[in-house]
Parts: sequence; C-alpha cells; structure tokens
Amino acid sequence: MNETQDQELRAHENHHASLRLWLRLLSCTTLIEETIRQKLREKFDITLSRFDLMAQLERHREGLTMGELSRRMMVSGGNITVIVDQLENEELVQRKVATTDRRSFRVLLTASGRKSFARMAVAHEQWVVDLFSGLDEHALEKLNDLLGHLKTGMHRQNTNSSSKETT
Amino acid sequence: MNETQDQELRAHENHHASLRLWLRLLSCTTLIEETIRQKLREKFDITLSRFDLMAQLERHREGLTMGELSRRMMVSGGNITVIVDQLENEELVQRKVATTDRRSFRVLLTASGRKSFARMAVAHEQWVVDLFSGLDEHALEKLNDLLGHLKTGMHRQNTNSSSKETT
Repeated sequence: MNETQDQELRAHENHHASLRLWLRLLSCTTLIEETIRQKLREKFDITLSRFDLMAQLERHREGLTMGELSRRMMVSGGNITVIVDQLENEELVQRKVATTDRRSFRVLLTASGRKSFARMAVAHEQWVVDLFSGLDEHALEKLNDLLGHLKTGMHRQNTNSSSKETT
Repeated sequence: MNETQDQELRAHENHHASLRLWLRLLSCTTLIEETIRQKLREKFDITLSRFDLMAQLERHREGLTMGELSRRMMVSGGNITVIVDQLENEELVQRKVATTDRRSFRVLLTASGRKSFARMAVAHEQWVVDLFSGLDEHALEKLNDLLGHLKTGMHRQNTNSSSKETT
C-alpha cells in the first residue's frame, strides 16, 4: 500500500476521535488484506476470494450450498459460481448432489483441495504472525480485548436499534 | 451482519493468537463498513463508493485526475468512470480540462456537491461515534495507540523486506 491508499490520511485534525480511530482501523485492515492478497498471488498464484472460499469449505467438511457460500463471503451468487467452476476444473472442489433433492448440491473440498489449502494456510498464518510482530504478547492481548469490547458494544447497539424500530 | 458473515468464526482454538486477532480485526472492520454502507443507502440513497469518491474530492479542492482517484480508492478505472458519470449527471461533480494539456482533466466537487457531502459527512461522523460508543475515552485512546504501533510495525517490516529483496 502506498501513501495515496492510506485511508487514515482522510482524517482531519478537527474530526472526532472516533472517526480518526475508524480510519486507522480501516487502514490497518486494508494494509493486512492487501499484503495477504499480494503474497497469495506471488507464492500460490491464487486470488484472495479463492483462498477465502477454500477456507470456508475447510471449516465445513459436509460442504456448503452456493447460497451459503455467497452469504458467508458476502459475494454475489454469480461470482461464487465463477470461483467454484475454476476450482472444480483444477479438481480442488467438487459438487455433490443432495440425495434428498436432486436439484440442489453442496460444494466440498476434494482430498487434493484439502492438501492444497493446508499448505497455503500454514504460510498464511506465518504472514499474519509476521504482520503483527511489531506488538508484544501483552499488546496483542490488549488489542484483542479492546476489539472484543468494540464488537460486543456494536452488537448490543444493533440489537437495541432493531428493537426500537419494531416497537 | 448476521452470524454467517462473521469472519471471526473461522478462528480455530489452535490457531495462533495473531491469526485470531486478525480475524477479529477484520470482522470489526466489516461490521462497521456494512453498517455505514446500509445507513448511507437508507438515509441518503447513495453507495459507499460514491461517498468515498466525494470524500476524496472534498480533501482535494484542486481536483483529482481519474488515475489519482482510481489509485486512492483502489478501484479500477472503469468503475471510477461509472461513478464520476453518475455524479456528474446529478451535478455533484464536474470535469475540468487542464489548461496545459487539453487531453487531460481533473474531477472536482461542484458547490452543490460540497454542500451535499457536508450534510452526509456530519451524519457519517455521528454513526461512527455511535458505533464506537461501547468504548470509553481511555479505551478509545488505547486502541488508537495499539493500532498506531501495529501500523508502524507493518510499515517498518515492508521497508525491511523491500530492502532485503533489492540487496
């Protein structure tokens, strides 16, 4: 990421602390994501979307429907179909027709897909460890706690605002 | 965001602390981004990309070229053209041909675009303040510091690895 892509530069001095914090959070996430995207391309010649899709399937050995994949990855059904087609051509995933409903099918990793993903996952984990290596164990733990509180707060707020809307 | 879209659920117990932290960071960013995207649509009938493009132009009163916009937003030139065309139709931005080179032009906010953006920016800032309201002032400051250290560490590492590659 070069300087022009750093969202934090959008923060003005007079912006509220929360807004500056949000732009910093966004710039950290973008920096990590772009680093991982670049390394996946360089080392494994694979896109981040393909890696993410395989990560989803690795967690769900029973397979996922196209709809489930689309929702989990927040990507449109058409794009998921393109990725699944490519991975199927390379024999990394397979479509399995449901016994109960012959029109529906699930997507699963093949044995070769699982092996290929495991190799990438080891490298991916090491990249992430390296990216966070500027923080010591205590700082990692503190950051984890604070993000946990942030998340809980946001979920609580979501629940409150939904219940307000329905009453 | 519902549970199926929470990247943190991908974290296994045996994953390295950094990997779990990264998935938590990613899930917080996604949650905030999706909330903002939804509110922009509901309240102002505008996409996040259009808002981000206007935010870039608001910071650069002298205007930006299409190439600069594309790099800053990490979006392809074709997509930028679509957004700029739409905003131009609504008279929120204008193209200004350079006096030195008649083939090149810059994109600027119009007076009406600046007014429209200012209104949205006030609401946007309040949404962000609300999203972070689960953290008190001290926690916000601490989180800001930790993310600052994380970012500095990543930039230092990037510099190191580039200099390693060239030597």
